[in-house]
Formats: sequence, C-alpha cells, structure tokens
Amino acid sequence: MFIKDLKVGEEVTAFYLVKSKNVKTSSANKPYIDFTLQDITGEVNAKLWDAKGDLEALYNPGEIVKVQASVTQWQQSVQLKIIKIRQSEDSDQVDYDNFIPTAPIDAETMYNEILYYINKMDSADMKKLVLAVLESYKTELLYYPAAKSNHHAIKSGLLYHIIRMLRSAEALSGIYKNINPDLLYAGVILHDMEKINEMDATEAGVVETYTKEGQLLGHIIMGIKRIDRIAEQLNVDSELSLLIQHMILSHHYEPEFGSPKKPLIPEGELLHYIDMIDARMYDMNKALKDMDDEQFTDPVFVLDRRRLYKSKYSKSE
Amino acid sequence: MFIKDLKVGEEVTAFYLVKSKNVKTSSANKPYIDFTLQDITGEVNAKLWDAKGDLEALYNPGEIVKVQASVTQWQQSVQLKIIKIRQSEDSDQVDYDNFIPTAPIDAETMYNEILYYINKMDSADMKKLVLAVLESYKTELLYYPAAKSNHHAIKSGLLYHIIRMLRSAEALSGIYKNINPDLLYAGVILHDMEKINEMDATEAGVVETYTKEGQLLGHIIMGIKRIDRIAEQLNVDSELSLLIQHMILSHHYEPEFGSPKKPLIPEGELLHYIDMIDARMYDMNKALKDMDDEQFTDPVFVLDRRRLYKSKYSKSE
Amino acid sequence: MFIKDLKVGEEVTAFYLVKSKNVKTSSANKPYIDFTLQDITGEVNAKLWDAKGDLEALYNPGEIVKVQASVTQWQQSVQLKIIKIRQSEDSDQVDYDNFIPTAPIDAETMYNEILYYINKMDSADMKKLVLAVLESYKTELLYYPAAKSNHHAIKSGLLYHIIRMLRSAEALSGIYKNINPDLLYAGVILHDMEKINEMDATEAGVVETYTKEGQLLGHIIMGIKRIDRIAEQLNVDSELSLLIQHMILSHHYEPEFGSPKKPLIPEGELLHYIDMIDARMYDMNKALKDMDDEQFTDPVFVLDRRRLYKSKYSKSE
Amino acid sequence: MFIKDLKVGEEVTAFYLVKSKNVKTSSANKPYIDFTLQDITGEVNAKLWDAKGDLEALYNPGEIVKVQASVTQWQQSVQLKIIKIRQSEDSDQVDYDNFIPTAPIDAETMYNEILYYINKMDSADMKKLVLAVLESYKTELLYYPAAKSNHHAIKSGLLYHIIRMLRSAEALSGIYKNINPDLLYAGVILHDMEKINEMDATEAGVVETYTKEGQLLGHIIMGIKRIDRIAEQLNVDSELSLLIQHMILSHHYEPEFGSPKKPLIPEGELLHYIDMIDARMYDMNKALKDMDDEQFTDPVFVLDRRRLYKSKYSKSE
Amino acid sequence: MFIKDLKVGEEVTAFYLVKSKNVKTSSANKPYIDFTLQDITGEVNAKLWDAKGDLEALYNPGEIVKVQASVTQWQQSVQLKIIKIRQSEDSDQVDYDNFIPTAPIDAETMYNEILYYINKMDSADMKKLVLAVLESYKTELLYYPAAKSNHHAIKSGLLYHIIRMLRSAEALSGIYKNINPDLLYAGVILHDMEKINEMDATEAGVVETYTKEGQLLGHIIMGIKRIDRIAEQLNVDSELSLLIQHMILSHHYEPEFGSPKKPLIPEGELLHYIDMIDARMYDMNKALKDMDDEQFTDPVFVLDRRRLYKSKYSKSE
Amino acid sequence: MFIKDLKVGEEVTAFYLVKSKNVKTSSANKPYIDFTLQDITGEVNAKLWDAKGDLEALYNPGEIVKVQASVTQWQQSVQLKIIKIRQSEDSDQVDYDNFIPTAPIDAETMYNEILYYINKMDSADMKKLVLAVLESYKTELLYYPAAKSNHHAIKSGLLYHIIRMLRSAEALSGIYKNINPDLLYAGVILHDMEKINEMDATEAGVVETYTKEGQLLGHIIMGIKRIDRIAEQLNVDSELSLLIQHMILSHHYEPEFGSPKKPLIPEGELLHYIDMIDARMYDMNKALKDMDDEQFTDPVFVLDRRRLYKSKYSKSE
Repeated sequence: MFIKDLKVGEEVTAFYLVKSKNVKTSSANKPYIDFTLQDITGEVNAKLWDAKGDLEALYNPGEIVKVQASVTQWQQSVQLKIIKIRQSEDSDQVDYDNFIPTAPIDAETMYNEILYYINKMDSADMKKLVLAVLESYKTELLYYPAAKSNHHAIKSGLLYHIIRMLRSAEALSGIYKNINPDLLYAGVILHDMEKINEMDATEAGVVETYTKEGQLLGHIIMGIKRIDRIAEQLNVDSELSLLIQHMILSHHYEPEFGSPKKPLIPEGELLHYIDMIDARMYDMNKALKDMDDEQFTDPVFVLDRRRLYKSKYSKSE
Repeated sequence: MFIKDLKVGEEVTAFYLVKSKNVKTSSANKPYIDFTLQDITGEVNAKLWDAKGDLEALYNPGEIVKVQASVTQWQQSVQLKIIKIRQSEDSDQVDYDNFIPTAPIDAETMYNEILYYINKMDSADMKKLVLAVLESYKTELLYYPAAKSNHHAIKSGLLYHIIRMLRSAEALSGIYKNINPDLLYAGVILHDMEKINEMDATEAGVVETYTKEGQLLGHIIMGIKRIDRIAEQLNVDSELSLLIQHMILSHHYEPEFGSPKKPLIPEGELLHYIDMIDARMYDMNKALKDMDDEQFTDPVFVLDRRRLYKSKYSKSE
Repeated sequence: MFIKDLKVGEEVTAFYLVKSKNVKTSSANKPYIDFTLQDITGEVNAKLWDAKGDLEALYNPGEIVKVQASVTQWQQSVQLKIIKIRQSEDSDQVDYDNFIPTAPIDAETMYNEILYYINKMDSADMKKLVLAVLESYKTELLYYPAAKSNHHAIKSGLLYHIIRMLRSAEALSGIYKNINPDLLYAGVILHDMEKINEMDATEAGVVETYTKEGQLLGHIIMGIKRIDRIAEQLNVDSELSLLIQHMILSHHYEPEFGSPKKPLIPEGELLHYIDMIDARMYDMNKALKDMDDEQFTDPVFVLDRRRLYKSKYSKSE
Repeated sequence: MFIKDLKVGEEVTAFYLVKSKNVKTSSANKPYIDFTLQDITGEVNAKLWDAKGDLEALYNPGEIVKVQASVTQWQQSVQLKIIKIRQSEDSDQVDYDNFIPTAPIDAETMYNEILYYINKMDSADMKKLVLAVLESYKTELLYYPAAKSNHHAIKSGLLYHIIRMLRSAEALSGIYKNINPDLLYAGVILHDMEKINEMDATEAGVVETYTKEGQLLGHIIMGIKRIDRIAEQLNVDSELSLLIQHMILSHHYEPEFGSPKKPLIPEGELLHYIDMIDARMYDMNKALKDMDDEQFTDPVFVLDRRRLYKSKYSKSE
Repeated sequence: MFIKDLKVGEEVTAFYLVKSKNVKTSSANKPYIDFTLQDITGEVNAKLWDAKGDLEALYNPGEIVKVQASVTQWQQSVQLKIIKIRQSEDSDQVDYDNFIPTAPIDAETMYNEILYYINKMDSADMKKLVLAVLESYKTELLYYPAAKSNHHAIKSGLLYHIIRMLRSAEALSGIYKNINPDLLYAGVILHDMEKINEMDATEAGVVETYTKEGQLLGHIIMGIKRIDRIAEQLNVDSELSLLIQHMILSHHYEPEFGSPKKPLIPEGELLHYIDMIDARMYDMNKALKDMDDEQFTDPVFVLDRRRLYKSKYSKSE
Repeated sequence: MFIKDLKVGEEVTAFYLVKSKNVKTSSANKPYIDFTLQDITGEVNAKLWDAKGDLEALYNPGEIVKVQASVTQWQQSVQLKIIKIRQSEDSDQVDYDNFIPTAPIDAETMYNEILYYINKMDSADMKKLVLAVLESYKTELLYYPAAKSNHHAIKSGLLYHIIRMLRSAEALSGIYKNINPDLLYAGVILHDMEKINEMDATEAGVVETYTKEGQLLGHIIMGIKRIDRIAEQLNVDSELSLLIQHMILSHHYEPEFGSPKKPLIPEGELLHYIDMIDARMYDMNKALKDMDDEQFTDPVFVLDRRRLYKSKYSKSE
C-alpha cells in the first residue's frame, strides 16, 4: 500500500525505504526507534516501540524494510506504529526505484538534451567552456536533486530543472530577439551547477547536509570561482567568462536571496524569470496534483504560505 | 534631421511634432513658448523666445511644425533655440507616421492575432467572454499605449504587449502541462485592458492624464468590475469568470504594486512572470539598442536605476 | 461552573456548547474525541478517552452537552478529562444564549439605529443606495460576527462594530466640518458588509470557513462589485457610487493590509481611523477586562504581541 | 492684492510681511535681495535686483513692506520682480494680523477651553499636575505653532491642535467606556507641549530653528523629563505620573516615528489615533479648500504624495 | 557529574541548583513537578513523576538539591527522570558558587577597575556625575546580569560587560583622536545602568521579571531621567549632562531597537559599536567554546539564527 | 588663497588643480568651460565664460592653473567667475602635493606597518598568502583611495584605512581572547584590496570610473577569486584560504550592502565592526573638524543625512 493511501485505524503490511532513523528513549525509559519511511508517493513517521537487538546496526537509511504496522494519528498527521519489521531480502524482489521520487524523464536522455543545446551554440568558446564544466559534473548530475526540500528535491531533479529551463529559454529567445541564445543556454546550464558541491546528496537524490564550503560561501560564489578557473585554463575569451559569472551572480535577483548584483544584461534578467517559472510551476503542480476540484490546499510553506486553489479548469502534469 | 542626431553648436531646419506646449514669462518679463518636440527617434526641449501672435492658438500639441533652430546645451541635455517656426502645410507633404513611435507590427494584424488565440480556446464560455470584451475595446485598442512613460509607451503599445505575451503563453503552456492555455490566454488578453479607461490617450498613443475612476480605483479594480458585469450578461460559468477576475487582481503580484492577493492558481502565477518578462525585455532593449559595445548605460530609472551593460555578445531587436 | 472559573485538581459537572470536535487515535491505538467546549466566558479543550458508540454521530458542533470531568493542566492551559458525557435534553432547560458570546446590544435595536443614521442623510441617492444594500443583507447581518478570530468575533459583532463606528462618525463630523456626514455614514455602514459573503458563519456567530470568492477576491473587491451593480440598477449618481467604492477600496489603508489605494478624500481617511479605533478599543477591553489591577497581560497576538497594562486608573466596559 | 490672487503678466502694488531675506550676488556679479513675502493667503518669492543702500539693515524678517512689482513666472511658480520697495509707516495703518496665518479661534478662548477640561477631571493629582505644566507654558502656548512646516504650522496652531483633540477625546470617551477621560485629557494636553522647547518660534508663530536639546533628545524625551520632575515636586501619585510619561512616549506609535514603546493602555492607543485624525483633517482641508470641484490636487508631500480628490460632495471648513 | 556531561541511558547522582519549578498534572491526572536544574555548565529539564508531600513548599528556586535520576531523551534534548530527590544539607558542604554561572573576574575587582577609569577623567564635573551614579547602584551592580537571556546573562554580567567595553574604549580612543575619552567612558559606564531597575534579578544573577516602569518606559528612558536629576542636583554643566543623555538615548542606534535618535557625536557612534562588539564576542564565544573543530553549531537564535563555524584556527576564551 | 577661505564679493588670484573640465554652450549659444578646481582644502566650481583657443586641448584634469577670478554665489554655493587663466609654468614652482588631499601618514611608512603585522603572524601559510597578495598590489596601493566619494576618498586612503583598522584589530584581539589575530589581520589587509581593480584611480588618488569587472562582479567577488587562485598556487592550507574568502564575502554584513552571507566566525564579525568604526570615525571627523563649537552640521549624506553636533567637549584629529 502506498503511503499516500494509508488510512487511520487500519493495519498495513508493506515495503518502505528508510529515509532517516533515530534511536531514542521513551518516557518509560526504554529505547525505541523513530523512523521516517518513504515510497514514491510520500513519507510517513513510524515508531518501533518494542525495539530489540543491535539498534545501531539495523534498519539504516537507504535500506528497504518490510513492516507490519497499525496506522494511527498524531496531531494532524498519520503515523505508523510498527508491529513487525524485517529487512528486505533478495527473494522479496523489491525494485529500489519504486521507493525513490525521481524526475519523469530518464537521466541520460536529459543529459543528452543538454548536449543538444550546447551543440546549437554559435560561439566555439562558449561550447568549449560549457561542455568542459558539464562533463566534469556528469556523474553527480545524473542523480542530484536541485534542492534539499524545495522545488525539484527529487532524484535527477537538477537535470530536470535544467532541461525545462532550456526549453523555455529556446522558446523565449525565439520571441525576444534581443536575447543571445548562446549566453542564455550557458546561464541555464551553469547557474545551479555548484549545488553539487554545496550539498551532499545520496545516489537516491536525497540531500543529507550542506558542505563546509557550501555554508561559508554558497553555490553562487563557488560557481563563479569554478567558471573563472576553467575559462582561464581553456583560454576562453575573458568577456564571455565574465558575462557568465555575472549571470550566475545575479540570478537570484534580490540581495536578500543571495545576489549582490542585479542582472545588467537581458540574458541575466531572462535567466532569473525562467528559473522562477520552473520552480513555481513545479511547486504548484506538486501541491495541486492530488487535490480534488474546487478545494483549497493547506498553506504551502514554500509559496509564502499561500493556499492554492484547484478549480474545475485545472490541469495537472 | 532626426532628433537623436542633433549636435550642439549646429543649426537645424526640420519638421517635428509638437508633443507639449507651455506659454511662460521670461526673467525679462516677456512671454515665450516652452515646447517638447518629437519625431520617431526621440524628444527635445525647444524655446521660442521671441514669440508673437496669438500664442494660445498657435503650434498646439498634435500639430507638426517646421522649425529653424540652433542646437544648444542646457545642463546635460540638448535644447533647441528656435529662430523661425511655422505650421506644416499640405504642400509640405509630411507623413504624420514619421513622428510617432509605434509598435513594429501593424495594429490590425496584431488584433487579428489575438482573434487567432481566442479561436484556439476549447471553452465556449471563455471564447464568448473574451471576444465580447475585446470587441468592445477595439477602437481604442488599435492605438492605445500600455503606459504613460514606462514600457510600451508607444502607439499600439498595448496591443504589442498583449501579442508578445500571447506568444510566450503559447510556448510555455507547451512546456508546463499543468497550465490550462485557455485561462492563460484569457488572462493575457484581459489583464491590462482597462488601462484604456484608466488613462486618456491621444490617437498618437500619448497618455495625457489619468481619469477620475483611474485614480480612485485603478485599472485592476475597473477590469474586475467590467468582467463581472459582462460575464453575467453573457451567462458565462461563474467559476470561470471568478478565475479571470482573480488573475487580473493578482497579476501585479505584490501588494505594494497593487495586487491585494497573490496568485492562487498556476495560470495566475505564470501570467505575472510573462508580464514581467515582456516589460523588462522591452525596457532593456530600448536602453541598449543605440549604445556602443562594451559600454554601460546611464542609470535606467524604470529598472531600479541599474546601469545596463552592452557587451560584444549583445543583440538588439 | 463557568469555564473561566475552572480550577486544576477539582471536578466539574456542567453544560457546555460543543464548538469543535475531532475523532483521533491515541498512542494506545484507541479512538478518542478531542473537543473544544465553550460557554459565554471562554473556551476549554476536553478529551473523551473512553469513547464508545457512533463517534461520528454524537456530540457535534452546535450541540449542548452535559459533562462530568476532572480539571487537569496541559502545558500552560487548563484541560478537561471527561468522565461522563451526554447530550442536553429538553428537560435540562438550558438556554442556548448562555453559551454564545454576543454583542451587548440587541440585534434589532442596532439594526434600527443604522436606519436612524440613514434617515439623517441629505442625499436621496445616498439614502436609496445604502438602504437597498442594507436590506439585502438584513437576515445575516443580525447574527454575523465581524471576524473569524479577531475583534468582534461574536454573534452580531458586525452590527456592533458598525453601530459604534456610526456614533464616532457622528461625533467627529461635528468637530471636523470638512467632512460630509452622508459619505462617512455610508462608508461606515458598507465598508465590511461583504464579510457576510467572504466568510461562512453559523447563526451562533462562529465563522467556520472562508468562501471560495472570499479567498480569491476578498471582501473589499466583492463589496466594490456589489455597490457598482446596485448603484447602476438604482440609477444612483455615478460620482457618489464611485466615492463609496473608493472608500471601501482604501479603508484598510496600507497595501499589505489589502488596500491598493490610500484614501484620496477626507471621509475615506476618517473612515479608516474610526475603524481602527473601534477594533483596538474592542481588543484592548477584551484583554484587560478580567485582569487584576497593576498587572500586565500575556502578549496579545492581535495587538502585535504587546503586553497590555491594567493600571489602578483603568476602566472596563 | 492677496498673494493667492497674483496673475502672471500683471503689475501689483501691495503690502506684504517679510518672512525671510537673503542678500545674494547675481551672475553679473551685483548684489540683489531674495525675499520670501507673505500675507494671510500664502507666500511668494520676490527679487529686488537693483538693491541699493545698507542691504543688511533694510527690510528684515518680521517687517511689513510696501512693494510695486511685476508678476512673473519661474518654473512652475509665480515670482515678483520688485520695481519699488519701502518699509511700511504708521500712516499706512497696516494691520499686522492680516499677514499672519492664525488659528481660527482666539488664543485666550482656547486656553480657557483647556482649563474647562482640566476642571472636569476627577483626580485631584491629575488636575494639579496638568494645571502646573500648562501654566508654566502659558506665554508661549498662546502663539506657538504645532510644527515647522506640517500640520498646524500657524500662529496658535499648537493650542488649536490641543483643543480639537480634546473635543474628540470627550466625544470618544463617551462612546468607549473603557477609557478613563482624565488620563486621555491629560495625554492630549501634554503630549506635544515640549515642542515649545524643541523649536524656536517667533511670536508670529513661525518656527526658525530647532533647539540644541530638541535635536539631541526631541520633544518626547524632553516632555517625559519635565513631567517626571514636576510630578515629583508636586508629590503626585507615581503611577499616575508614570502613565502620562508612557502616553507621551508611545503617542507616535511606531519606532521609526520616534516612539520606542507602543501604547500599553487604551488611553495611549486612543491618544495616538485622535492625534492622527486632527493632523490629517487639517492637512486635507488645507490642500482641498481652494480647489475647484472634480479636480485632483498636486501630490501633497505630507500625505505620502497622494493626489487628493475634491468631489462635488466635498465640504470645506 | 556536570550537566554538560550527562549521557542518555545512564544514571546520575549529583547536586544541582533549582532554577525553576512548576507543579503540574499528568495525563493520568496525578501531580508531578517539572524542574529546570542548573549547574555551572548548563541547564537540564527534570521530571519528578512520583511527587509526594507538600509540593508547594519543597525544592524551590534558589535551593540546591541532591538527585538520583536516569538520563533520558525528549525530542532533541536530554532530560532527567528523577528517582530520588532531597534538599542539600550543611553536611553536604556544597559550594553555592559551583552552581551559578558567573563572570570570570571577581566583582569587587571589576568595580575597582571602573573607579580607575573614572579617575582618569579630566573633567571634574564628569567625574562627579559618573561617580555619584555608580555608587548609588553599587550593591546591585556587584551581582546583576546584563540581560534576561541574551549576552552576559550571568551573575555580575553587567559589570563584566562594562569592564570589557571600557578596555575597548581606552584602546580605540588611543587610535581615534577625535574621541573625547571622558565622554566615551561615561557613556560606557552609564549606558545600561538602569537595567538594574528595568529588570528584577536575584542575587544569583537570574532575571525573574521586568518591572512596571521597565515595561512602560524601558531602561533607556529611565537612564535619561536619572542622569537628568542627578546632574541637576550636583550642579553639573548642562551641556555635559545633555551629551550623556544623548549617548544613552542613541546607543541602540536603530529606532526599531529602541533609539529614537541616531548618535550625533562621534563618542555616541563609537559607544554603539563597542557595545555591539562586546555582546557579539560574548555570544559567539558561548556558542563555540564547547564545540569540536570543523563543525557548525545549531542555529543561534540571538545571532539571527546563524550556524557558526568552529574552524581548526578557532580560539576560545 | 585656499578654497575654504574664499569670500563672496572679493577677487582672488591663485593656483588650483583642475579636477574636472567640461566644454558647454551658453544660453547665448557661445562655448564656455565649466571647471571643478581643487586644492588641499576643498573644491570649487568655476566658469570661464569668455573661452578662446583650442578648448579641448587646454586646462585639462590633473593640470595646475593660475586663475584670476571674482568670487560669486550660486544657490547655496561659492562659485568662481574666471577673469584670467593660464597653465602653471616651471618658474611658478608650485608644489603638486599642495593640491591633493592625502592621508596624514607617509605611504611607504604605512606599507611597512602592514609588513610589521604580517611578520607577527604565527601561521607560515597565512604569512605567505597575505604577503604575496600585498606585494602584487604594492604600486597601486601606495596611492589608491578607499572610495570614490565616501570615507577615505583621498590619496593613499586605502592604506590609511588598513593601517588604522590593523591597530584596532591588535587592540581588540588583546581584549577578546576568542579571536585569532592572524585571521583578523589577514581579513583587515585583504578585505578591500580588489577595490584597486574595481575602480580606476589616478595617481592623485581620484577615482574616475568603475571598471567593467567592478560593475559586473564587484570587489568582494573579485577579491574571493583572487585569494582562491593565489592560495592554490602557493599551496596554502585550503581551510585557511576558505576562511579568508568567507571573511571577505561577509564583511559588508547585510545582503543589501553586498554580503550574501553573514559572518560565521568571530574574526569575520569583528572585522565588520572594525571596518564600520574606521569609516564612521573618518566621516565624522571630516564633517566636524572645521565647525565652530555648539553648532550642528548640515545633513551629512553618507551618515544617513544626520546633522552632527560639535559640542564644547569635542576633539578633532
């Protein structure tokens, strides 16, 4: 049974992926385990009150477990009270991918779509620079999410974010002729790339922590340093390198969101809006897709606590 | 000679359109006329010091005059000191259109492109409503600007704004499948329509003043009232009318820019960003198009006083 | 025993009104009911741990129940642990009004006081318009609160809010002769009227939810549309209708509180301040009235978390 | 001829009061005098180009002069070019009061109205304290304005401000029974009293400068110190003194307007709103009273640059 | 065992100081005691479930108790479940000072260091004034903390804050010759002195509550009044008194932090920065001192929720 | 005669340095030159109305001219009307240094003082890194100002800013033992170094323009990139390089002033405050040093338009 279908008062037997695990002590002074379990449809808190054995060794994050549990309610949320638990075995033939929320397009396919856009560039220097950066990140890019908990916090989410932005960039630079598509594509591909070094993520696309450099400098500054060095090594035209650094610097647009400069070129301005559109469309679709028509959502934290409306004219992806 | 080509110290003889005219008194206590003259390339202040005749009757806004003048400098700006002036005559064969900055696409063509998008709508109610509103504004829409002094403050500027937004709307609703194109097109076509009643503009596309209702309520509120009444008259589904009203209400996004509600549906969110993109691309292109490469503009008021950069990779429309 | 007199450690037997009810599951995996009970002096949380029977059907909001309970403490608050519960019966002869906080003046009396002010108006158009709107809302107006949880969130609270503002309006327009009392009275009577359609309230004056149109447009926009239509139907002078719409639009004063325009006429300015005074006097009296002298209240959420002071010179209504 | 009736292009001979005078040097390197002249209807800039004699000694502020001048225009404003000027003489029989904007009620009458309100107080301590403070300021209070350039910047303007606030205080404490009128009257009478020591004003009610203590501490802090000392000398109940100090401290309400604490008692809250109402009604009446109907004013600086509307339903004081 | 060394799952027997105590009722409807216990290394929550005897009389704040308890975990924090508890006895020979976080320098020594700085002043009036104020506060100053929960919330914390600021003042006025050290020392010594009357603290340096005057006026206003009176009594030069009052008024710098005026003299400007430096160095040292290298702290509330970094180059006091 | 001693109405003959020069056209349509002239005491506007010869070639910025001029007044300012002008000749024996505001300490001396602080560092890596950066900038550092128009906008102003900050850093790290002086010194020396590449300045210490990279990235980002590369080349410990980059990134403290991260280490926090103190002491001393006692300055733009007070207790550098 999928997590989103759990009903209070019933009992469930199912496989779930352990997302996090904490050994705690109950008010009766006994150890218990506090889990976050997940499948492709969501997450649920679960308690194993009667925990025995080597609690540190068992049921660790990244493992799949089979649980029998009663579905209870705590405050506004569903919670599992685990009756039985064991680790999954080969004979269970569980498919790991069924437990990890993942972008709807295959990672290699998306990677190749980026290559297609690089190929369309007129400037040889631009091609050379973007390709070199891209290839140096390929391994991680195939599974990295775009964020810890906001938009595109899924496996291959960063790739998916880039791809949809590239498509928008192509469409809009067809309408606005004052845009140099080479610059815009480069900005799209590189703007968030250093999130890979700002956050530590598992191959399941889950961010576990921010890195030391990520906290002290942030992905914007790290990205600028990276472009600066690689462009110099490849002997790329310095104006071109500077413009890309400026686009990375300014793409959050407002100082309080991390950009000390606003865009001074149209490609930087458009990059910002394309980025916003992709994030907002993702978050709104996620909030609305499982709702009934003519209902309002609960306040959505990442959208300024707005309560979105699902009308009878709504569509979902 | 075009206004943008005037050089301090030279003398010029040319036809210009009178944009504004004020009769004033000089420090020597004599009457003089203070003009703003324009042609398709810009505007210039001009003084007629030695003014004779019925000053109130002569050389009024909207008329084309022939002037002989010396080109002087006042503070940072070029100024004309008029030596001779007369009204244009039929025999001059001046073409009025050479003096009025106008959208680069023919107005009727743009109007028909709107009809094309209305035609693509699935919902009969939506078609009926949008068409009724559009047709009721047709006469003014063909020449109205989109603003008094900001983006698209040109003849047929409002139409041009709508057309480019519709094209973006079409492209982006092909990428973001959670968008109902009918709703988005309707929002684009109607979001600024009541600017026609908020501002009084001449047929040359120049806004002269804000109307009483424009100042006391503003085009957002006026637009909502208009949709509300027409939808009722046409018996349009009330949810549909309500959604369009909500999109109009929320399209400025922030309370301090006039929207008491933020968008609660994805189509409203996207409408806002498409609107921003079109305004910003217009303003940036205008600021950069006559610049040399590798130069910064003066601070651009409407872009938070940013000094934009024209790189060697820049393109202009 | 009144709720405000409950003491931790004692036992109580009393009648209370069910304000809300939720069926939940305990940590021991058994169903229980979580109530909010109220009487005229306040509200208290109550738990029925040993719940039997058809829990969905029993003890619903709006019903009066008789409970025997022990008074316990949870965190900083008093809580009831229910020992026995039953629904009230005719033979109990409970008076529903003893359980509902209500404005201190009779609703019909207040309604008539509004009519008295309408009668004093000089302008026949104004009279006609205000009277038509008022009468169309009469049924709901007699019991509607003015808010969900802030000032005047009591039965007939909206009427009480209007009445006290009318009295202030009369007094202040006697002092400030640049005020047209007709306009000010009309603004007072109509400024919040569409709260009746923005919020769904029970006849006990309790708001249960915001309506769809309330969330997508809000009572200010809804009020403007209503005035606009009715004034047109009644053939009211358009300037007069416009001024009232402007007063409704601007009465929250700041964009971030929902007014895209600030008042441009003195009557709108004064309306705002009269509205603020009535709300603040209500909230401050509520916070202070049961306090001892020379004490500070807990932080009052609706007053920016201020801790009010009850001095020995304080008075209560 | 009154200043407000001057017409560009005409010549005028009239008496005016010198408000300010500066001796300057012209571009032709000759001395001239730059005046601000005033009468009861307004102010006008005037130039005496051909200045002879002891320029420092002649035509100083506070003197009345007779001028013959031509009325010219400079930028948007009317300006006088003085042809002849002389000081007024006894034989001219000019009435000084015709040149000074003054509150519409006689100063002694207003002072007595304050005494009337003090007399109504129940608390002997309050009476004693307020009376002592009031009497110590009587001389200045009779002519002081309430501000340098904003509301009530007229002779006896501070008294007029107090009187209208007291009337509002009386009316509103009749409606809101949780208000102690003694406290509110005391707050009204004392809240701005130290403006007398914060600003240096002439007997014509014109503020010339801020004092040293005014700039380093401001009238709010100065007022608190004053009350603190006098209350101690008079042996007034300390709670009462503290409450008045708190009302003075909090009456500007927002930190950025000078109040480090918000009101914690209802009388302080109401004092703030009564103060706002009186200032705003004064400023709005001043901006609108000489306008034609159905016109908007120029942006009014002190009202957040709003352009007020004078409707056909407007009234003026 | 020190509180910072407690480990979940172990049992502890130790003496602790009772910081706060609340008698509550459990879900099983039995009374229990909820303690905050402290020693010199920190604080811990403790529950006495099986509480017997006169619960109001036993184990009150300020007493030292001996407890036997098991160390458990609740949410993210360590908690004690008390097995046995008794009050400390003379024979236990516990040293009260081991339980109270105290400034690292002896109070009398610090007091004498202030006298040393007063002695260095050139101005006799300044010496006289500062000394008089200092001596009038001596008793409380020896143990008062500088805050309820932020920086220097320890016994003698206010003295420690003053001392370190005086040392900075001395060093910086040696570098910046436009600073009058007399004024700066006076400002440092007096800026927070009225915190002693704003907050009620125990002799252990723990703030229990804010006073009435503290809440209605605050220590800045109270300090100004105090200086004003004492300076007058001692016949101190009025300019000097005014400057000190201005420094107290402006030392929080921003209106929203309580200063209605910004510093208008360099000594006031520098006082603000010295104050900030001392507070921030204290808070940062406290947050980092027990951390391992190359770790980030949890978000620190008083430092805008920053997560500080302890590098391998870090030093602790 | 020094510029600060010019008196309106007199005539002057003196040498001044041309700071800027613009050829303009008068209202009589004749060319004239608009100068800014300077000496060590200030700047003055000057007009050469009767300009003859090759105006583009003559009297350019950086040259010293001898002028005979009458001193006139324009608006609030003194202005020179040039009667005669010629370029200075060798025989005039003017000393260039008398015309350029310069830091009060010799540049080489200051440079050596920096070396002294580097020498005190414990960490060999830190020494190596800071020294390498410093030496690479030595030529420009000897004359660069610290800003275009704010604090330390004088010749060698950047050096002077660094030196005074180093002295404060030494003093305060003696008081606050949780500070690593090596890190703090490094931060002080390097925090603004890239201003040298952000702004183009003449050897007279006058900034003429911002560079392209300066406008697109800013000195903070440029400084981080520089440290990053040099540290890598020199094989400096990466944690140390990262900490210095973080200190540069965070030293403006607030996002709206250019720092996307706040300091996460105490040395960064202290660097910010030392930087503020030095800038503010400089600006305040500059504003007050030529004032009479017991006067207020005009509003000082760079100090939030505060009007500073010069008391009789003030000192100047």
